[in-house]
Amino acid sequence: MVRILCVVSYDGSNYSGYQKQLNAKTIQNEIEHALKTIHKSEVKIFASGRTDALVHAYNQIFHFDTELILTVESWKKALNSLLPQDIFIKDVKIVANDFHARYNVSCKEYLYKVNMGEFDVFNRKYCYQLGKELDILKMKEAAKLFIGSHDFYNFCGNDESEKESFVRKIFDINFILNDKIVIISIIGDGFLRYMVRSIVGALLEIGLSRKNEEIITSRLDNKIENHCPYTAPPEGLYLNEVKYREEKNESST
Amino acid sequence: MVRILCVVSYDGSNYSGYQKQLNAKTIQNEIEHALKTIHKSEVKIFASGRTDALVHAYNQIFHFDTELILTVESWKKALNSLLPQDIFIKDVKIVANDFHARYNVSCKEYLYKVNMGEFDVFNRKYCYQLGKELDILKMKEAAKLFIGSHDFYNFCGNDESEKESFVRKIFDINFILNDKIVIISIIGDGFLRYMVRSIVGALLEIGLSRKNEEIITSRLDNKIENHCPYTAPPEGLYLNEVKYREEKNESST
Repeated sequence: MVRILCVVSYDGSNYSGYQKQLNAKTIQNEIEHALKTIHKSEVKIFASGRTDALVHAYNQIFHFDTELILTVESWKKALNSLLPQDIFIKDVKIVANDFHARYNVSCKEYLYKVNMGEFDVFNRKYCYQLGKELDILKMKEAAKLFIGSHDFYNFCGNDESEKESFVRKIFDINFILNDKIVIISIIGDGFLRYMVRSIVGALLEIGLSRKNEEIITSRLDNKIENHCPYTAPPEGLYLNEVKYREEKNESST
Repeated sequence: MVRILCVVSYDGSNYSGYQKQLNAKTIQNEIEHALKTIHKSEVKIFASGRTDALVHAYNQIFHFDTELILTVESWKKALNSLLPQDIFIKDVKIVANDFHARYNVSCKEYLYKVNMGEFDVFNRKYCYQLGKELDILKMKEAAKLFIGSHDFYNFCGNDESEKESFVRKIFDINFILNDKIVIISIIGDGFLRYMVRSIVGALLEIGLSRKNEEIITSRLDNKIENHCPYTAPPEGLYLNEVKYREEKNESST
């Protein structure tokens, strides 16, 4: 039995999210369907985490176990030949049997893209079409409030209410400006559901000068209960990178 | 009666081309449907020319005549509120009654996008995913053969066979390289159906070193009849700009 790690890129536009669901088109369903075709039996995959409906990934990571002996190049070709055009396996590695795509995560980077310019038909599914100028300096200042370990109870979805802890650590938030496109990069040790979109939603309200930093300071660390009043739309969000502890265990063949 | 000019951008991915068809989704159908809703009667639009199924436009031009008195900003808002998300009116002008979006064209620019790098799920409908390196210098040399007035009978679709003349003038062909993306710009006084994709198809064969310049020299100006053996796929093609004679007649309000 070998454990295989895959780096996958997907356009989430036509999917009800990453996670397997009955009677819905999901990324996990498609990949497990391709693996079933190869193995002629069910194969379960384990990803670094879920992404929601319409959310994209440049480099999502998943692993699975197999008895089949194929080169990494053959795995890549076989999977891509079976997957639909909006899911693409970019890389395949053989990893140690104790590697786990979800439990060994050390940090993740999400990107959020906003278009301040005129509506762009070609990016309508790939970038939030805000169509208004943002005060990036104000947003950069406000973003500093999120850095460090905080209780994000007010910055996550209701369906997370069974979680033991809402404390997550944000390492860095950066802004990249390319003409009218703003890309917000958020790096943290883990993210609750809707957490990135809730952070971005608050930053957008501040960047639009509709609200001030009080919408962060009053809600972060659960000071006042005010659950997710600002959530940026899903089409601007990308899971960009996942990093792991003990990467020394990975070996590429 | 006033004549209105519109600049429209569209993502052609979900359409059977620009031109009106029965029982097919086309750009013209959608725009005329929006105008019918506004006017409560049929309004015919006249574009600079057709684009084929899956082909895009950054700045297609069309005109229509109306008895309604609206500001250009109101036209833009009204149309965009009625059009689907993949068609966007970028600009509206009032023009002279002798302006014609098709007959007054002086030149057009098409762009063709090719990805030499790894398959990109986000651009699969917006850029030809070639996945192979091109010899751009060879392509630049070969492109010079097309410059000037030539008979493009061998570089157009069969359904153009009733045309009186296959002579068109190419003013310029340029190459823009952005990492692994090559953008080919072709400017000419007019284009036959499939002409851009047929020119690009020949240039790609040369850039891949599969063929040499003889596939152009032997076929251009109808020397040997060899009709469209190389046609680049539609998703890489964009109508980028249309220029008009007598632009002095246009007045913006």
